[in-house]
Order: sequence, then C-alpha cells, then structure tokens
Amino acid sequence: MSKYDIIVLGSGPGGYVAAIRASQLGFKTAIIEKESLGGICLNWGCIPTKALLKSAQVFEYLKHAEDYGLKVKDAEHDFDAVVKRSRGVAEGMSNGVKFLMKKNKIDVIEGYGKLKTGKKIDVDGTEYSADHIIIATGARSRELPSLPQDGKKVIGYRQAMSLENQPKKMIVVGSGAIGVEFAYFYNSMGTEVTIVEYLDKIVPVEDDEVSKQLERSFKKNGIKIMTSAEVTSVDTSGKGVKATVKTKKGEEVLEADVVLSAVGIKSNIENIGLEDVGIVVDRDKIIVNDYYQTNIPGYYAIGDVTPGQALAHVASAEGILCVEKIAGMHVEALDYGNIPGCTYCTPEIASVGLTEEQAKAQGLDVKIGKFPFSASGKASAGGNKEGFVKVIFDAKYGEWLGCHMIGAGVTDMIAEAVLGRKLETTGHEVLKAVHPHPTMSEAVMEAVAAAYDEVIHL
Amino acid sequence: MSKYDIIVLGSGPGGYVAAIRASQLGFKTAIIEKESLGGICLNWGCIPTKALLKSAQVFEYLKHAEDYGLKVKDAEHDFDAVVKRSRGVAEGMSNGVKFLMKKNKIDVIEGYGKLKTGKKIDVDGTEYSADHIIIATGARSRELPSLPQDGKKVIGYRQAMSLENQPKKMIVVGSGAIGVEFAYFYNSMGTEVTIVEYLDKIVPVEDDEVSKQLERSFKKNGIKIMTSAEVTSVDTSGKGVKATVKTKKGEEVLEADVVLSAVGIKSNIENIGLEDVGIVVDRDKIIVNDYYQTNIPGYYAIGDVTPGQALAHVASAEGILCVEKIAGMHVEALDYGNIPGCTYCTPEIASVGLTEEQAKAQGLDVKIGKFPFSASGKASAGGNKEGFVKVIFDAKYGEWLGCHMIGAGVTDMIAEAVLGRKLETTGHEVLKAVHPHPTMSEAVMEAVAAAYDEVIHL
Repeated sequence: MSKYDIIVLGSGPGGYVAAIRASQLGFKTAIIEKESLGGICLNWGCIPTKALLKSAQVFEYLKHAEDYGLKVKDAEHDFDAVVKRSRGVAEGMSNGVKFLMKKNKIDVIEGYGKLKTGKKIDVDGTEYSADHIIIATGARSRELPSLPQDGKKVIGYRQAMSLENQPKKMIVVGSGAIGVEFAYFYNSMGTEVTIVEYLDKIVPVEDDEVSKQLERSFKKNGIKIMTSAEVTSVDTSGKGVKATVKTKKGEEVLEADVVLSAVGIKSNIENIGLEDVGIVVDRDKIIVNDYYQTNIPGYYAIGDVTPGQALAHVASAEGILCVEKIAGMHVEALDYGNIPGCTYCTPEIASVGLTEEQAKAQGLDVKIGKFPFSASGKASAGGNKEGFVKVIFDAKYGEWLGCHMIGAGVTDMIAEAVLGRKLETTGHEVLKAVHPHPTMSEAVMEAVAAAYDEVIHL
Repeated sequence: MSKYDIIVLGSGPGGYVAAIRASQLGFKTAIIEKESLGGICLNWGCIPTKALLKSAQVFEYLKHAEDYGLKVKDAEHDFDAVVKRSRGVAEGMSNGVKFLMKKNKIDVIEGYGKLKTGKKIDVDGTEYSADHIIIATGARSRELPSLPQDGKKVIGYRQAMSLENQPKKMIVVGSGAIGVEFAYFYNSMGTEVTIVEYLDKIVPVEDDEVSKQLERSFKKNGIKIMTSAEVTSVDTSGKGVKATVKTKKGEEVLEADVVLSAVGIKSNIENIGLEDVGIVVDRDKIIVNDYYQTNIPGYYAIGDVTPGQALAHVASAEGILCVEKIAGMHVEALDYGNIPGCTYCTPEIASVGLTEEQAKAQGLDVKIGKFPFSASGKASAGGNKEGFVKVIFDAKYGEWLGCHMIGAGVTDMIAEAVLGRKLETTGHEVLKAVHPHPTMSEAVMEAVAAAYDEVIHL
C-alpha cells in the first residue's frame, strides 16, 4: 500500500494548488482525479468560459468596427471554431497542471477515490494511505426538480460550453455569474436569449446599482430579462423546449431550442465515503474549522465542498492555508469578508465586501461614493463609458466596507480594493495614492473622493 | 482690476484640477488658458493618443479575427476616421473641463497670461490679481538642434496625432512613452516604422527586462529598432526626409516620409514673466519646495514646469496638494518614489518604484519575483500571453521596492502596487490578499510568491 504524507482528493483549483504547496513544503504528496487535471475550473468553468467570452468580445469589435474608424465586410463567427478555441485553451491549461504535478513530484492517481477510515483512500480497488487527506471534490451544476437536465434540451454549464450547434433561442434560468456570462456570450453570437431569474434582480448577490446597470446594458443589447420569475415546468417532447414561466402577472410559455439551467451548484459529497469515515456534513457542505480540519483528525476539506464562497480563488487560498497549517506554519485564518467576486460578461462586474444594502441592513452609517466611467478620459478614449465604481466606507471609523465595479476591465481592477481592505486602508490613503492617468483605475480614486466630497471630475 | 483668491495660469491636468480643488475649498478662483481647456493632456496628449491606440488595438483584432474563431473580409482602416475619432474624444474631454469650470464657478480667462510683481497677472493687456498665483504652464515637445521641427516632415507629437495623410515610412526618434506609442500606432496602421534611440535600449526608464520584452514584441510586429543610435542631421530638401543616423557601426542614411521627434519635453517657462517677478529657475524647471511654493511668496508652480516627473497624474496631485496647503490643511508631501508610469502601446507597460538595476545600484539586497502571463489562465483564454509582472522586494526589511509590468491591461493593474506600497505592505500581505481567478491580476500575487519561493503556477 502506497503511503503519502498528504493525499488530495480532487484536482481542481483547490486540490492541485494544495498539492503544489504541500510539495513545496516537503510533503510526499499524491493527488487523485477521476477525470481531467484542473477540475471544473480549468476544464469546464473559469477558463474555457473566458475563452468563449473573449471571442464574443472580439466579435463585438468586429460588429462595431466603424466606431473606431475601421471597416470590415461580412463579420461572421464560426461557432465551431469558437468552441474549439475554448476547448483548446482548456486542454492547454490542463496539460499545464500535468506539467506542474510532474515538476513538483506529485503522484497523480487516476481514478475514483473513496475515503476509508484510518486515513486511507480506495481508488478503484487500490488502497492508499496518508497522514493527511484533503477532500477537494468540488461541485457540479445543481438540478432543480422542475428542471431536470437531459444534457440536450435542458443543459448545465458543461454542455453550454460545448454545444455542437448554436441554438437560435435559449432560455437561461438563473442570473448569477454563470447565467449572465452565457447569456452575454450567446446573445453576442446571435442567439435570442431570455433570462429567467427567481429573485427580483439579475446578478442578485451584487449591489443594487450594479444589477440595474447590467440589466440596462443587457436589455440594450437585446437580451430579454424576466425577474421575480420561475420556470415551473419544461416540456421537451416536441422539437424544442416549452418552458412554463410563472411571474407576478401569471404564467406564460416560452419556446426555445435549449434551456440552460444555471441555478447554482451542488457539492460533490456523495459516494466519496464521508459517511463511512464519519465526517460531519451540514446543508450540502462538509463542516470544517478555520484550518479546514473536519471533525475526524487527519481529514480536511477545502473548496466548494465547504461553506465558504464557491469560487476558484477561495478554493486555492483554502488549499494553501490548509497545507501551511499542516506544516506547522503560523497561518492567519482566511477573511471571507474580503473575497472578490468577478463576472466576465460585458460590462464586467467585480466586487468585494458589503453592498450598500448589506451595510445599511447592518445598521452601519456609511459614506458612499460613485464615479461613472462616462466621466473618465480613458473610458472615453477606449469607447468604454458604460459602468461605474462605487465605494462604501464606514462613516465613523473610515473602514472600506465595500467596492463595487461594473465596466470594462474591472475584474483586473478589484485587486486594489482587496489589498487596500486587507491593509486596513482609509479612504484618504487611497485618494492620496497617485493613480496613473489616463486609466480606468482612476475611477477608484475618484469614487473614494466622491465619498468624501472631494471628487474632481464630477 | 479683478481680484481672486487664487489664479491658476494654465489649464492642463495640473491647472484645472488645482482650480477645482481650490473652488471646493471655498476660494474665489480663476484659470487662464491661451488655447484649449485641458491643456496638452486632454487636447494633444494622454487622451487623444489613447483614442488612436484603441483604434489600432481594435484593428489588430480585425486582422487576427481567425485566432478567435471569427471571420472578416477586407479589414481596413480609414485613417481620416481614426484621427477624427481621436479629435472628437479630445474635444469632448475639453468640453467636459469647460463644464467642470462652470459647475465649480471658476472664471475662465482666455488669453496669454504673464506674471507681474505684486501677485498680478496680465492677460493680453488686462490685469488680474490674486492672493495666490499657481503657475501650471506645462511643457512642449523638445527640439534637438540636429532635428529642427518644421511641422511637416519633421514633426512633434502634436502633428503626429493629426496628420492628414498616413505616412508610408516613419522614423521615430526617441523611445520613451510617446515614441513607442506612436511607433506602435503607425506600425499597426501599416506604416513602416523605424525607432532610433540614443540609449542602449528602448523605453530607457523601464526595467531592463521590460525593455527587452517590448523590443522582442515590436520586432515581431515588424518595427525596426536602432539603439545606441543618433540622428545627426536631416535633409528635408527632397520629396521625403533623409535622416543620417550614427550608430556604433558607422553612419547610415534612412529615408522616410516623416520623422517624429519624441526626445522629451521642454518646460513652458519663457515669456511668462518669471524673470520680472524674480522666480528662480534651474535647468529648465521652476524651483519649488514640498508645497510648490516658489522663492517668491504668493507664487506657486506645479506640473511639468517643476522638477517632478512630467506626468499628468503628478501635475494633478501637485495641484491638489498645493491648494490644500494654501487652505491650511495638513498635507503630506508627495512621495515621488511612488509615482506609477504607464505606456499604452501593445503590450502595455506599467511600473512604479525602483527597477532591478536601480535597486542594485543602490546596493540593496533584493528578492525578485517574476511571473509570465504565459502561465496565466486568463491570459491564455484572452490570447494575451505576452509579458510578465516583476516585483522587487528589499530582502532585509521586506519593503516593496518596485513593480514592473508588461502585457495586456497592466496600466489598470499598477494601482494595486501603488496603494500597496503607500500602505507599506509586505510581500506576504499581497500574497494573502485573495486575488480573483481568473484574472491577469493574479500575476501580481504569483510574482510576489515567486520572490518568496512560494509560486504555484511556475
């Protein structure tokens, strides 16, 4: 029986990052993967969707070439080639992880791993043991009882990024990051898209003003949006799909070629032996402490199977922290209040911390500043005047409670807010950090200035 | 004679920002401008060049549409329309400043202002007085004796952004930000471009590795580069221009339609009455203290006429600080060691702090980390694998000495380093600030990790 210091079950951005850090810290490490190295993120999530979205964004430039003093004839997309490019990018990244495993001398065990008592894992009949076992099995698309996925007409994100034929009409159920990214992508490609959202606004976790801005932008681009709406049943018996949608006004039936169900995720905690080992699970999540230790010594869990935000960067951070703690390093618990979230449709969305609604619900006295990109020189020059940066400070103590951005390139701009908040910056320090001109990032400085009535360009 | 609290001479990004801040702080304020509100930056600098560069970048997408699974026929640019768009953007921004002046109740005095003793300014025969006079007259393209600008065949940046016809061949003398931005733009548009740089590398103020990366990229795109080279004379008597270039190998004569002289700037300190008032000038700059006070009480100077970096954001920061000090606010002197610099060609360049060469020349013991975008998932998905982030830390005290970036979108990413350095972050704090996945900004975190031998994706 092979014995390791650390075995990681699952090779997504939680698992493979944990394995690399473990190897760096001198642990003999193995990683178990039943499918492709890199997990959903690299193969069916973050990365291939960004490739699709890039094609869509470039296609928008082609369609609007005249706005930039350019001319093209017959701008077309080759749906097949767009999907193929995306798959190629995913494959390249997965190979990259393979290379990293090899470089870091991590044993890759292919197969289906099942936890056993005594810190063992069975992989398709072969047993492995380790001093520490890290569960990083991730999550999958959640299925609603009213919306069973058949993978053809009612699909999840996985099929949505590798359809053989572009649908003419699509219904996207759910408007979180995954839902709106696909809605944007397919709309750009020429599919008629309707979003059906159960809550009263799209991108429901975002600040209200961000949701409103995205809704305006999407509607302007021809995406239909139904909020406070629910798909109660689907009929896939005919040529396409008929979806019955219940709204406040009553019921209506929408027809489409495909319904994409993007209503959240479901942790992969079944059939991995949790019950055998006695690991405590609550509401679809494995319960862990600040160092990702489960209730059973020697078993840890990170990523989407734990209660933190189900995001790749959270999983990676958890993986590193978990391993560093095992190594006896002094580690500071992750601050789940300072995790950025990004959505990569156009306009992009990036945010961290409290929304205005959350801050007010907590009874906090806030100072709010907002700077629209319409007032930014760089945004004008780049043709990116849509969107804004909004910042929220605690009026009494000056704490930077939240930062909410919507617009071009904001997913690369939110890091400033994350670092600033981590370093417990005040607004005036942000204001006096000289932001380069002309950049979109000036909008952060100006939004802060607006919160303190010192804004220049408004 | 009209009397003001504050009069600002010059309405560039130093002057107009100072005027707005002055008005916010309750000062009766006027601003004097001889040409267009917004100065060079808005009208002939930062903003219109970014508009041109955006057209070039979109044109690159058109030319490489197939890389994204897209198809176009006959991708062309309309040089006239490209320039017109840029002029339109500049005009819009200048009108924006006009609006801001009105909104802030700042009197705009059109005309040529000349300083007088007794805190007075003469504007074309009319005299104005103020308690405080801020000189913000900026700078212009520097002329070399060997390269006199005739505005037709030997031009400065101003003509370069509004040529009526696209030149077939262009020589760009000087490879600072202005030089390489125009080199990139014209090369993208199909002009045959040769860069002639006096020093031994292009973008000479940048870290050596950044210069090398840009040189590789430019050469790959067909730009010719001559370093350690000097234009000793130009002959404009024929149809085009013949430029004699002296290199280590000897002399050669290059022919072109146009020579762009981009060899730096010259302060606008002549004929504005400095001598009459007795304001001390040294090596083309007005000498000021930490609060921008000249040697004569009541006269201040900010922006390109002072010794700090000749950058729009420096001028704005100086303007705000100058006025806040006049208002009796507690102000902290600007840290000129934490000013970011940006160059907007493709790949973009952004940097702050010491280069590796500077740090070593200062005898500092450094930890260096570098993360190439080729190892970034977002960069792969976006087709932006060129470039890297390089960070430099003091090995002993952990101070973040410098950050150097080259690649797509880095000009919006440098703000994180500026704020982090202002807040005296350590590397580990950057590392433990969770950067969102997948973004280009992860490269900052990974470069820091590389400096501390904790990099994951290399």
